[in-house]
Amino acid sequence: MKEFLGDDFLLQSELAIALYEQVKDLPIVDYHCHLEPSEIAENKRFENITEIWLYGDHYKWRLMRANGVDEHYITGDATDWEKFEKWAETIDDCIGNPLYHWTHLELKRYFDYHGLLSAKTAKEVWEICNAKISEESFCVHGILDKFKVEMIGTTDDPADSLEHHETIINSGLATKVLPTLRPGHLYNVDSPNFVPYLDKLSEVSGVEIDNYSDLMLAMQKRVDFFHEMGCRASDIGMDTVVYEEYSTFEIDVIFNKAINGKALTQEEIDKYRTSLMVDLGMMYADKGWAVQYHMNALRNNNSIMFEDLGADKGYDSISDTDLAKPLARLLDELAKEGKLAKSILYSLNPAQDDIITTMIGNFQGGGVKGKMQHGSAWWVNDTKTGMEKQMISLANNGMLARFIGMLTDSRSFLSYPRHEYFRRIMVNLLANWVIAGEFPNDFEKLSQIAKDIAYFNAKDYFEY
Amino acid sequence: MKEFLGDDFLLQSELAIALYEQVKDLPIVDYHCHLEPSEIAENKRFENITEIWLYGDHYKWRLMRANGVDEHYITGDATDWEKFEKWAETIDDCIGNPLYHWTHLELKRYFDYHGLLSAKTAKEVWEICNAKISEESFCVHGILDKFKVEMIGTTDDPADSLEHHETIINSGLATKVLPTLRPGHLYNVDSPNFVPYLDKLSEVSGVEIDNYSDLMLAMQKRVDFFHEMGCRASDIGMDTVVYEEYSTFEIDVIFNKAINGKALTQEEIDKYRTSLMVDLGMMYADKGWAVQYHMNALRNNNSIMFEDLGADKGYDSISDTDLAKPLARLLDELAKEGKLAKSILYSLNPAQDDIITTMIGNFQGGGVKGKMQHGSAWWVNDTKTGMEKQMISLANNGMLARFIGMLTDSRSFLSYPRHEYFRRIMVNLLANWVIAGEFPNDFEKLSQIAKDIAYFNAKDYFEY
Amino acid sequence: MKEFLGDDFLLQSELAIALYEQVKDLPIVDYHCHLEPSEIAENKRFENITEIWLYGDHYKWRLMRANGVDEHYITGDATDWEKFEKWAETIDDCIGNPLYHWTHLELKRYFDYHGLLSAKTAKEVWEICNAKISEESFCVHGILDKFKVEMIGTTDDPADSLEHHETIINSGLATKVLPTLRPGHLYNVDSPNFVPYLDKLSEVSGVEIDNYSDLMLAMQKRVDFFHEMGCRASDIGMDTVVYEEYSTFEIDVIFNKAINGKALTQEEIDKYRTSLMVDLGMMYADKGWAVQYHMNALRNNNSIMFEDLGADKGYDSISDTDLAKPLARLLDELAKEGKLAKSILYSLNPAQDDIITTMIGNFQGGGVKGKMQHGSAWWVNDTKTGMEKQMISLANNGMLARFIGMLTDSRSFLSYPRHEYFRRIMVNLLANWVIAGEFPNDFEKLSQIAKDIAYFNAKDYFEY
Repeated sequence: MKEFLGDDFLLQSELAIALYEQVKDLPIVDYHCHLEPSEIAENKRFENITEIWLYGDHYKWRLMRANGVDEHYITGDATDWEKFEKWAETIDDCIGNPLYHWTHLELKRYFDYHGLLSAKTAKEVWEICNAKISEESFCVHGILDKFKVEMIGTTDDPADSLEHHETIINSGLATKVLPTLRPGHLYNVDSPNFVPYLDKLSEVSGVEIDNYSDLMLAMQKRVDFFHEMGCRASDIGMDTVVYEEYSTFEIDVIFNKAINGKALTQEEIDKYRTSLMVDLGMMYADKGWAVQYHMNALRNNNSIMFEDLGADKGYDSISDTDLAKPLARLLDELAKEGKLAKSILYSLNPAQDDIITTMIGNFQGGGVKGKMQHGSAWWVNDTKTGMEKQMISLANNGMLARFIGMLTDSRSFLSYPRHEYFRRIMVNLLANWVIAGEFPNDFEKLSQIAKDIAYFNAKDYFEY
Repeated sequence: MKEFLGDDFLLQSELAIALYEQVKDLPIVDYHCHLEPSEIAENKRFENITEIWLYGDHYKWRLMRANGVDEHYITGDATDWEKFEKWAETIDDCIGNPLYHWTHLELKRYFDYHGLLSAKTAKEVWEICNAKISEESFCVHGILDKFKVEMIGTTDDPADSLEHHETIINSGLATKVLPTLRPGHLYNVDSPNFVPYLDKLSEVSGVEIDNYSDLMLAMQKRVDFFHEMGCRASDIGMDTVVYEEYSTFEIDVIFNKAINGKALTQEEIDKYRTSLMVDLGMMYADKGWAVQYHMNALRNNNSIMFEDLGADKGYDSISDTDLAKPLARLLDELAKEGKLAKSILYSLNPAQDDIITTMIGNFQGGGVKGKMQHGSAWWVNDTKTGMEKQMISLANNGMLARFIGMLTDSRSFLSYPRHEYFRRIMVNLLANWVIAGEFPNDFEKLSQIAKDIAYFNAKDYFEY
Repeated sequence: MKEFLGDDFLLQSELAIALYEQVKDLPIVDYHCHLEPSEIAENKRFENITEIWLYGDHYKWRLMRANGVDEHYITGDATDWEKFEKWAETIDDCIGNPLYHWTHLELKRYFDYHGLLSAKTAKEVWEICNAKISEESFCVHGILDKFKVEMIGTTDDPADSLEHHETIINSGLATKVLPTLRPGHLYNVDSPNFVPYLDKLSEVSGVEIDNYSDLMLAMQKRVDFFHEMGCRASDIGMDTVVYEEYSTFEIDVIFNKAINGKALTQEEIDKYRTSLMVDLGMMYADKGWAVQYHMNALRNNNSIMFEDLGADKGYDSISDTDLAKPLARLLDELAKEGKLAKSILYSLNPAQDDIITTMIGNFQGGGVKGKMQHGSAWWVNDTKTGMEKQMISLANNGMLARFIGMLTDSRSFLSYPRHEYFRRIMVNLLANWVIAGEFPNDFEKLSQIAKDIAYFNAKDYFEY
């Protein structure tokens, strides 16, 4: 029986332990997350463990709700201590859940607390954490330094001024904090926010947007600007993947309807989105960026809570719409233009893992190692079994050794141990193959593969 | 090498063995099954092992058909002994199938037979079983007593008089036999049986049903009556999950068409069904009932056999229609009304396990622990790998410790060892996490979780 | 730690090793592949290892593309040595991929090379292999003899003269090389090749094809001819499974439009295809053939590469369209006519494994053991995890012991070790159940099941 969260946590063999030694101190390339650039710019400090852990973490909220905790203690007006106490009670019973591991890993790595969080220990943990948080070194820059975070890819709106990124550059922070362009507001052409958003984009780009061509002109300016500011990637949430044949003329008409506040049919929305993804995709390719496609999330399913709290509050789940055909069409359209950017595909639906793995194989080539990537197990799949499943899928039908590996996708500065979690699971998988006689026991080769997946592949891929 | 079906069957560690000791003697809450209330009421006795095993068990029939056995020996006119012999020949080769385990567990637990069933032993087993069956204690009440069955949830039509439930209550049987309201005939508005069924419902409810409001009035009376009779749950088979926006006016028109025997379009059927699920769902919530949604079965696929034998004869399989969006809409509609009942979601398609697990997370809350449940691996998924998969999914993205656990869903009084089967698999899973160092070795905590899943969660959930 | 590719490769227990001894020398029934009959007829010899390994193997090409190798070295004008060298570099990093195993198994079994292929050893391997290739015994007939290939099912167009099959019969080759009728050109009614193809079919059948009835008459003649030539199976690629109700009149009209070069709607195409599958299906049933349905491939996704290289060049992936309902309808329609042939169902989408397993259960019967088959893990699923998943699915809801087992589906004469690969995985799975106490340790019974799956079931099934 292994000790819980011991040094050999998740490492089931001597070989796995030895391989982990090879990767554990490598820098972190956290190429996709939802950290606030302003908080990095200001080198934010925190009040207490509840602020850092529970103000924004919808993973924890969902578990508390499943445990019957009243919303008062989750997003409501309860005190920070009361909220922490409810979390402590909840996590204590979360056997098999990754948050049980993340929570205790974070307590160990950030707070040097080696016990278990529960109702019984809540007060003790509260005090230990808060004392640590009040120390000089416990600030955003201190954390990034401690975890050797070499690069962070934030998630940024095209209309964003990137002023915080500029501040960060000027601060001399060792971590490179690169913007990632995510044109979600443009994608949501059916939203009441679309027209006001165009005004904002118009202003920041200096391009008056009267038609779709103007929009592309404005976006080209933003892409140029983002690139100058270090951006090397784009990102989009295609909750439902669509590819609808369109003509330029049709897009002009649809865009005109949209900016005049006229309702669009689903077909029109789909045509517009297809056009947008193609036209922006070509811009990204010109810059040598990577494009991240986040697919098949089903968002904001609880209307009452959405009205109360807004988006990203723990009311999202997995969608099951077909994606193989439209996704193939979209990528092919870009390939036909000779402008298929490096691409990272994520589906929230793990039943589509093998679809993604085999899809990327259709568009590999052009002399780039691992140009097309099956993104690391995303969100609800970011679990031990989910990561193993994604890596086995990739190994079965692609080159796992070219995988760019882990990202946190997190809103919290306390998530860096998830890279440790991933690295342990990844080297353990490699080692298991060797132990089973399915790969030769060549330590040098294994180390190289492990280090590539843990760090070097991502470093090379994003060319920052 | 472990002994087949030994005391440590499915228990891979000392810890698992120790945990199993904690749960093995707990009572059984079999909250969903298809037992005949009349057979419980009359304290039925059986002729022989074929009657009890092979008259109604389409799981066994499917295996016999796969083995090339002629229908004569399955549902045909062969003698009971001939049928039994064919089953013995078949099961002997069913390596890896849960029926291999169920069959031998049942032989052990009910008949004290510890050998293997095969063509060679068929005669011996036939005699041993039939001798046991003829004993005084081998009757329905004796079985329920022996297996400590505390509660049974039967499956009952709204128009049912529940006379057998009343007989059972009056009999003083220790097992609580609670009706479950399953309005399948109402759901099937496109069936020729719909109008005749309404007459029956009208008669039993005393409400003349001339329009949809009348129907709801009649159903409210039945729900009240079922509640009085101990009912604490509803159930529905949504073979294809639909959510189609509707207006009350539209439903009136559709219902009017239906009762006048006019054909409905698929869209009309879907609107009616959506309305029905919403309106009944609110009634259930008012009573504090749990609602069970059984989704994505594809039924009666073999027309010839359906004409010969009718429904539920082993010609059903898994459907693959999308369910995330319509299911989210339905649950949200109920939540918006503040009338989302406790709900248990089952999909027959195991590729949708993670959809279900993440869907329930959207609607947890309101101070009820585990209000929304991912139902135990259903029907074709009721296997070792299927149960592990469902529990790992639930652990990954929810609170496994709040899971209400196993039900038999069975038509046979010989199925109670499936609770044993489940409990062994469940404690083994818990133990494996501890042994792998993924959860602390806290026996008290583990025992509590195991006991909750095995018994206490279901007991609390149904508030009988 | 096991030795890589040692004698006990993939065999995790003494029992597995002992069971493997029982099956390792059994003949091979390779009932579905894409070998060129002409190459068997002429007893082809090879120039070098690149010709045999890299001229046509899109599995290898996909890995090389993923590794960033320029197309010049894949399907381009590079020398054979240069291509081989690039492959050697690529495979060296393919941890976890089945081609890592296949490659080294083939080097062992065909070339007696026991080292590892990499950039470092490429030259040495090149020379060893080419020396072996130049030996007298290294020819197609020699290979078939060495691997005890008892039967090969090729894949043949209905218009094919089968002259090579005739040559093979007359050559006295011990291996039976049976044609398999695959009417792909007929299925693709929307292709510009459809009408020219009908001319060809007309010529070879001696039936003038002016309407759909003529087509059926022509096909009946081809089916008769194929049967005479030893054909015992048909095959079809239903990339999207459809079942669209049709009338004979409609089919006449649609066919008339097609032969007059008029465009068809998707609905018309689907009706035609449904009719074709039903009418041919009945012909196959009359002959006692087996029908293989290959479903949910998404083909030719990269237009540029398709124009350059054509079909089957490594640009295919998994589709995710629903299949349960249309597939059930198709099989039921045949069953209703009393003409459902023995059928083998394959979906490229592994998320549909359990759909397939439960679907076949709807149509088992008629006194044929294992009449309906869940085909062995196909193409991208032909991996250790894929095969285990398919067999566990089948065991959970069907009779694994009646499984007809492995086929190569290959274009290469070097693929026979995949039967070894399958047999090792299969016996290991059986042994694991016994070791875990889930099946009795009855060696005789286990051997019989292993031998049946490895050889005897397929031999019986195809009645060649």
